[in-house]
Amino acid sequence: MRTFQTPIGVSCRHIHLSEEHIEALFGEGYRLTKKKDLSQPGQYACEETVTLVGPKGDIPRVRILGPARSESQVELAFTDAFKLGLQTPVRDSGNLEESPGLEVQVGDKKITLDRGAIVALRHLHLSEEQAATYGLKDKDIVKVLVDGCRGGVFHNVLVRVKPNYTLDFHIDTDEANAFGAKTGDWATVIIED
Amino acid sequence: MRTFQTPIGVSCRHIHLSEEHIEALFGEGYRLTKKKDLSQPGQYACEETVTLVGPKGDIPRVRILGPARSESQVELAFTDAFKLGLQTPVRDSGNLEESPGLEVQVGDKKITLDRGAIVALRHLHLSEEQAATYGLKDKDIVKVLVDGCRGGVFHNVLVRVKPNYTLDFHIDTDEANAFGAKTGDWATVIIED
Repeated sequence: MRTFQTPIGVSCRHIHLSEEHIEALFGEGYRLTKKKDLSQPGQYACEETVTLVGPKGDIPRVRILGPARSESQVELAFTDAFKLGLQTPVRDSGNLEESPGLEVQVGDKKITLDRGAIVALRHLHLSEEQAATYGLKDKDIVKVLVDGCRGGVFHNVLVRVKPNYTLDFHIDTDEANAFGAKTGDWATVIIED
Repeated sequence: MRTFQTPIGVSCRHIHLSEEHIEALFGEGYRLTKKKDLSQPGQYACEETVTLVGPKGDIPRVRILGPARSESQVELAFTDAFKLGLQTPVRDSGNLEESPGLEVQVGDKKITLDRGAIVALRHLHLSEEQAATYGLKDKDIVKVLVDGCRGGVFHNVLVRVKPNYTLDFHIDTDEANAFGAKTGDWATVIIED
């Protein structure tokens, strides 16, 4: 067994939009406004937010993350999915097959996504160099230990390796609340040989 | 290491009220109406609900659990506490020292609790006979393994033993959502000798 430390990044519910959907919601040629950079290089939170509308309820002020993607995607915690009335699968980002759709509103503009709502599979970002250092490769599965009075071990943590990624363990708000963890806390990655 | 199986019981946010507070909210001599029995003998969900009001928001339709207690107590998930704007400690039931207060509304009646809002420490109920069978005693700490694609291990699970308790592992909705678990699922108690 080998271990190393990683920072934790907590992802609140958010939406990635395609260029087409950005224009449908904000107008032709609209460019999103960067609010702040996120831990992974090139990714940023935008000033703009949307309202998510599901069959059982809606959630206002949901942050848009940039840049635009090829397909719009909504990442929810199960708590959010229940509020909206959606049966969301647990998926790695970008895998939207058989995920439910929902409506997305900005002011009086509204679009309907045919699919795209998922609960993100907990995952560990690593650069290629960091992965090599720890003997990990893309799509490996590891465990992550979180200390504290609500601590425990997350199983089935997906390893995601890209040259420009930086070390960060991403969990959603349900997972963070269950473990009493917050962004910037540290956790221990466990690799069972 | 020894292990055994336990059912999981997911506790949604709820309130226990004192006789005095039941009368303040519903009228003199009022008796709560049982809706359904809970897993622990003598405990029941009531037809009546309240609205919780905190400094940052409110949550309607919060179930009252009976029977009346000596002191009112509100059990929340952290997701609920954030919505209300409360800084709630993680506590075993009944330990309300330095827990925040909040307002509780029913129709046009309102009471203010000076304290009583907690996030319940995850815990395992056992009868005295079950505890003896598994070599456990009240206030022991165990771990609990939950299987599945969002599975993992809960550390710091408090053992609660009383003659009339029945085997059940109680977690809140954040914990259930983080692990993809629901009431009636089974988990594995791990006792490390």
